[in-house]
Amino acid sequence: MTRLAPLGRLIECLTRLPGIGPRSAERIAFHLLKSAPEEAQQLTQAIQEFIRTVRPCRVCLGLSDGELCAICRDPQRDQHLLCIVEEPKDLLAIEKTGAFHGIYHVLWGAIAPLDGVSAAQLKIPELLRRVEQQSVSEVILATDHDQEGEATALHVGELLKARGITVSRLAAGIPVGSNVEYTDQATLTRALAGRHPL
Amino acid sequence: MTRLAPLGRLIECLTRLPGIGPRSAERIAFHLLKSAPEEAQQLTQAIQEFIRTVRPCRVCLGLSDGELCAICRDPQRDQHLLCIVEEPKDLLAIEKTGAFHGIYHVLWGAIAPLDGVSAAQLKIPELLRRVEQQSVSEVILATDHDQEGEATALHVGELLKARGITVSRLAAGIPVGSNVEYTDQATLTRALAGRHPL
Repeated sequence: MTRLAPLGRLIECLTRLPGIGPRSAERIAFHLLKSAPEEAQQLTQAIQEFIRTVRPCRVCLGLSDGELCAICRDPQRDQHLLCIVEEPKDLLAIEKTGAFHGIYHVLWGAIAPLDGVSAAQLKIPELLRRVEQQSVSEVILATDHDQEGEATALHVGELLKARGITVSRLAAGIPVGSNVEYTDQATLTRALAGRHPL
Repeated sequence: MTRLAPLGRLIECLTRLPGIGPRSAERIAFHLLKSAPEEAQQLTQAIQEFIRTVRPCRVCLGLSDGELCAICRDPQRDQHLLCIVEEPKDLLAIEKTGAFHGIYHVLWGAIAPLDGVSAAQLKIPELLRRVEQQSVSEVILATDHDQEGEATALHVGELLKARGITVSRLAAGIPVGSNVEYTDQATLTRALAGRHPL
């Protein structure tokens, strides 16, 4: 007996998703078979609804359920202060702090030569068009503090500075609540360099 | 800005699947958004087709695309030799060896008190009905060689022996291709106890 064709097709589709290998795909398939039929139905409906209704905002490229996202529609947001993030989930993380009242631009990735992602694949032309058309005075580079994020911040920062825009980067340092003793060397070095008077 | 409702619903459905937490669910959602629209469509179609066409075989409870699975329909299989497995994937693993020509019974789980799975939730009544109605002479207990599988084998074995059926268990020992040096103590102990004359 060979594996049933519908099972093979489902496993093939599931393994295309990030973080799912053939074994997890098999586990998920058997889980769907063992659980109530509504569960599989709810899942397919949720995927379809998500794909149908959620799209990138025309201006900031963040997630939106219409042409413009809630932030770009909000007249209260400071249009002069632009925060650049790699992915929509980074935008959500910053929004959760409640500490930022400007607008965003989502690059949809970071420069990662090892993963075959070059600057050309990021939403940088859209960003440059925005800063030329809108009255952005300061840009905060909120890409990740890893190699890819740093490379992206450096590249995008140079392009923006050449256009006379003030560019800043999120502070690097010891996370709140953690100990100096257990902080890695790279972070401690950055925290020392970024020390500020009390 | 709060998270969009369709994204929240998709993440909720995805986290119900085994091995997927909120972070992987978010990654999968963004992957579906970034990839070609056909990918999400193929995935939902594969889930729907799988759920619609694949069901447990009426006799062995293994996966089938009809009332009876290919193995139960096959007159060449030895109807006196029954192999008991925990899950359909175990059946597939044994079929791949080509070394077994009997029939199967899938328990759909193993006794696992810590996970809230008791003997009552396994397909044991169906098994006992089969061995009473069919002319099964030997049963091979091919449950996993972990605590849950051993407990299940012990329990099912007792029930079958009480009905006068010869019961055997898959041999435990050193995996083919591995070294004595790196074999764990429990396996070595079992391999010693199960030694056979050359």
